[in-house]
Amino acid sequence: MRPAPDRLSINTATLRAQWSLAEIVDGLARHGIHGIAPWRDQVANLGLAASAARIRDAGLTVTGYCRGGMFPAIDAAGRAAALDDNRRAVDEAVALGARCLVLVVGGLPKDPRGAPVSRDLGAARGMVRDGIGALLEHARAARMPLAIEPLHPMYAADRACVNTLAQANDLCDELAPSDGAALGVAVDAYHVWWDPALEREIARAGRAGRLHAWHICDWLVPTTDLLNDRGMMGDGVIDLPRIRGWMEAAGYEGLHEVEIFSTRWWAEDADRVLDTCRARHRDAS
Amino acid sequence: MRPAPDRLSINTATLRAQWSLAEIVDGLARHGIHGIAPWRDQVANLGLAASAARIRDAGLTVTGYCRGGMFPAIDAAGRAAALDDNRRAVDEAVALGARCLVLVVGGLPKDPRGAPVSRDLGAARGMVRDGIGALLEHARAARMPLAIEPLHPMYAADRACVNTLAQANDLCDELAPSDGAALGVAVDAYHVWWDPALEREIARAGRAGRLHAWHICDWLVPTTDLLNDRGMMGDGVIDLPRIRGWMEAAGYEGLHEVEIFSTRWWAEDADRVLDTCRARHRDAS
Repeated sequence: MRPAPDRLSINTATLRAQWSLAEIVDGLARHGIHGIAPWRDQVANLGLAASAARIRDAGLTVTGYCRGGMFPAIDAAGRAAALDDNRRAVDEAVALGARCLVLVVGGLPKDPRGAPVSRDLGAARGMVRDGIGALLEHARAARMPLAIEPLHPMYAADRACVNTLAQANDLCDELAPSDGAALGVAVDAYHVWWDPALEREIARAGRAGRLHAWHICDWLVPTTDLLNDRGMMGDGVIDLPRIRGWMEAAGYEGLHEVEIFSTRWWAEDADRVLDTCRARHRDAS
Repeated sequence: MRPAPDRLSINTATLRAQWSLAEIVDGLARHGIHGIAPWRDQVANLGLAASAARIRDAGLTVTGYCRGGMFPAIDAAGRAAALDDNRRAVDEAVALGARCLVLVVGGLPKDPRGAPVSRDLGAARGMVRDGIGALLEHARAARMPLAIEPLHPMYAADRACVNTLAQANDLCDELAPSDGAALGVAVDAYHVWWDPALEREIARAGRAGRLHAWHICDWLVPTTDLLNDRGMMGDGVIDLPRIRGWMEAAGYEGLHEVEIFSTRWWAEDADRVLDTCRARHRDAS
């Protein structure tokens, strides 16, 4: 069954090259789109209070706030700074009325220039576990759900060392075993479509009440860049309707958030991008 | 503990831009390297009998033959042709005295121009299972071990839809549950280093006598190309000594095969590449 048009949400990264956050909010209203997922830098540019007011006045559902995470660091001071920053992200997410704070957990610890300084992926994963564990108290008090987003394994070193939904589910089991409302997952098709265990792990997350977000775009063949060559729904090989079916069978009732990092789509007219998102959401997701 | 120098093997893809197979065989002898893993196109260029004689005369261990696989196809005729080709690859591997035939299993079925014609990854995985199952009879009769190589998830669509060692182990359990000598795995660090289940799945493969090959190179940060930006051991973030330790603890006693697809190393003098492989094998793997 085709998704209802009112399920569409737009992650602001999709239009970051063309429009400011204020322009995106206005554009979504103009296109009859009901959801938004803003990024912290764009919110900071407009101002938190102004962003919250503008999004509220437009009647938009905030399907997620991007992003917390990036827990691993060389030393305890770096990890403490990351935790402080995550607490601020929780507070901002509350001010924006977001459904969840998305956690891109971070990869190997880096030096100030961004180069990895360790090969110990297990230790980085331990820092992620400890960081989320420490953040949970603040997030629970603020009633802001945390959503761990497993990232594609090609980002394990530099962006997120949580790389499968099984691993995210294991983290939730360890840190918040019976509290999916406090700690759950964001399922992004781009990152997990290849996983042979995906259907089973979506069902597992659903049983635990952990499915906080569903992100869509497509995997292009060939993919020419690891970061900025994601595809518009329908242009690639991900069977989005099938995976959405698994999400719905597992109880997911939230919106469908389009997040496309793409030099190709960033070069398009923003209104044309939104027209295409609406059409492809309807026909190819 | 550092690996013994006589454990080093070179996959001929590492020098494919600089040298023919004959030149590679001579070069390995000159550098005191005892193992080789040739590719089918290079063997075809020199001729099968000549390749086998030259490798034998140089006293090289053939740590694997690259490659069989690519089972999925649009129709039954295409799958039958793939199976025939795989049977020939088995026979060539026998002629070369290879320790195993490496299987890169293939991704989604493609049209004649190489574009995917399906989004059904589950069906492709079924074709892979059926293809390996059908090939097994011929391989068993020829006493040539098949080694399923899980490829990094970024290749799921176009190269291999077996993307984790757990999935490869599951396939072996299904098709040859108590015959690791007939059907096992090739563990390539580049493809599996990120996997949270890696240590456990290497141990599982070891218990079943399935560890037929250990391939090494490194994951660079940043990685600028999905295909041809693999790193020399020590230049990236993979903890090769640790994973080798898991292999050895699981009973692996074979050679360590260096396979580097890299425009950067293909542009280097081949003797310098081999010097570097020897040094990095010793110091960083």
